Amino acid sequence: MENSTSAIIAAPHGFNLTQLAEPISWFGDLVAFNNPLTLDNNLHSEPIGKAQGFYLYDSKIPYSAWHGFSFVLNTTDYKGSIDMVGANADILGQIVRNLSIVGGTGDFFMHRGIASLMSDDIQGEAYYRLKFDLKFYECW
Amino acid sequence: MENSTSAIIAAPHGFNLTQLAEPISWFGDLVAFNNPLTLDNNLHSEPIGKAQGFYLYDSKIPYSAWHGFSFVLNTTDYKGSIDMVGANADILGQIVRNLSIVGGTGDFFMHRGIASLMSDDIQGEAYYRLKFDLKFYECW
Amino acid sequence: MENSTSAIIAAPHGFNLTQLAEPISWFGDLVAFNNPLTLDNNLHSEPIGKAQGFYLYDSKIPYSAWHGFSFVLNTTDYKGSIDMVGANADILGQIVRNLSIVGGTGDFFMHRGIASLMSDDIQGEAYYRLKFDLKFYECW
Repeated sequence: MENSTSAIIAAPHGFNLTQLAEPISWFGDLVAFNNPLTLDNNLHSEPIGKAQGFYLYDSKIPYSAWHGFSFVLNTTDYKGSIDMVGANADILGQIVRNLSIVGGTGDFFMHRGIASLMSDDIQGEAYYRLKFDLKFYECW
Repeated sequence: MENSTSAIIAAPHGFNLTQLAEPISWFGDLVAFNNPLTLDNNLHSEPIGKAQGFYLYDSKIPYSAWHGFSFVLNTTDYKGSIDMVGANADILGQIVRNLSIVGGTGDFFMHRGIASLMSDDIQGEAYYRLKFDLKFYECW
Repeated sequence: MENSTSAIIAAPHGFNLTQLAEPISWFGDLVAFNNPLTLDNNLHSEPIGKAQGFYLYDSKIPYSAWHGFSFVLNTTDYKGSIDMVGANADILGQIVRNLSIVGGTGDFFMHRGIASLMSDDIQGEAYYRLKFDLKFYECW
């Protein structure tokens, strides 16, 4: 996770879907999450940290949302946070969605880059797993 | 929209004003939006993309709010997102309010800059239109 | 507050704790705030500006939250905003929590850095005060 590509698999589960808007629509739903991060796509792997933050559905259909969140890592190798914002936008028609890494602390002090995310496994509303690839272009 | 000034006119309409707080006050109201972007101030112009995100009123009076949102452009000229955060703060007493462009993806990869916004047309709660001027000072 | 360390004491009070989730848990609670900033820890000091934005509790226990907010300063010395995001994460086990300064406007044009915050005084839910140390590593 130096200045190169890292693969982090996030395994969100048990999140709290706060229904702010008409339940029939996803629009306006705000989801707070605090989910384990693992290095592979196995739910039972030892987490290396947490993905903490929110997303806000901004479309009447699923999977278009504005995100603000951080990866907080606490391992012997990495301690610190990676802060991200951006639109998981469907209008670009891409399977891989890109968000901005706008800062970081600790081992990720002042980092900037791109976080690419894609669905890794979706089982209705009961479970989903996202795959993230983080690329850092500015480090300190 | 290279490293210079660009004028983008956002024409939000039909947004979902989620009432979280006392209706008599704007404080705490969170507004999710997904609105067309046009290059001029004509509602009927062909959109060049969407403005997606939220603002959160942080004052008992209107028009002071914290914003997190992205412009997502999808035209033959520009594909990608411009990610912005910041306070549309009334305490500075300015008509033009400045937000931070903190990142971008696609054609706006790693961009930073300033987004200046001003009211272009406000018709009560039924319709409003904002004018944005984006200036990029860091590009890649 | 040039390119060095500045101490700003934020004295939030009277905030609106919007209960989105189960009251017994803090998870999912979103707090909008608009609080005075002072240079010392005296509630009665003349404010130099406002801290405006939100935090979203992402844990069932207090004091783990994702933040998006700005310091908006309006004095004869400083005019402008400092925009911050990040996780006030408990999993790192630190008393001092670090957030990312991702941008700024006016006198803080294009600034980046680290905002370190710690509890200065907490009196239940009635009153709390945070101490911030801002370090800017990129200025323009």
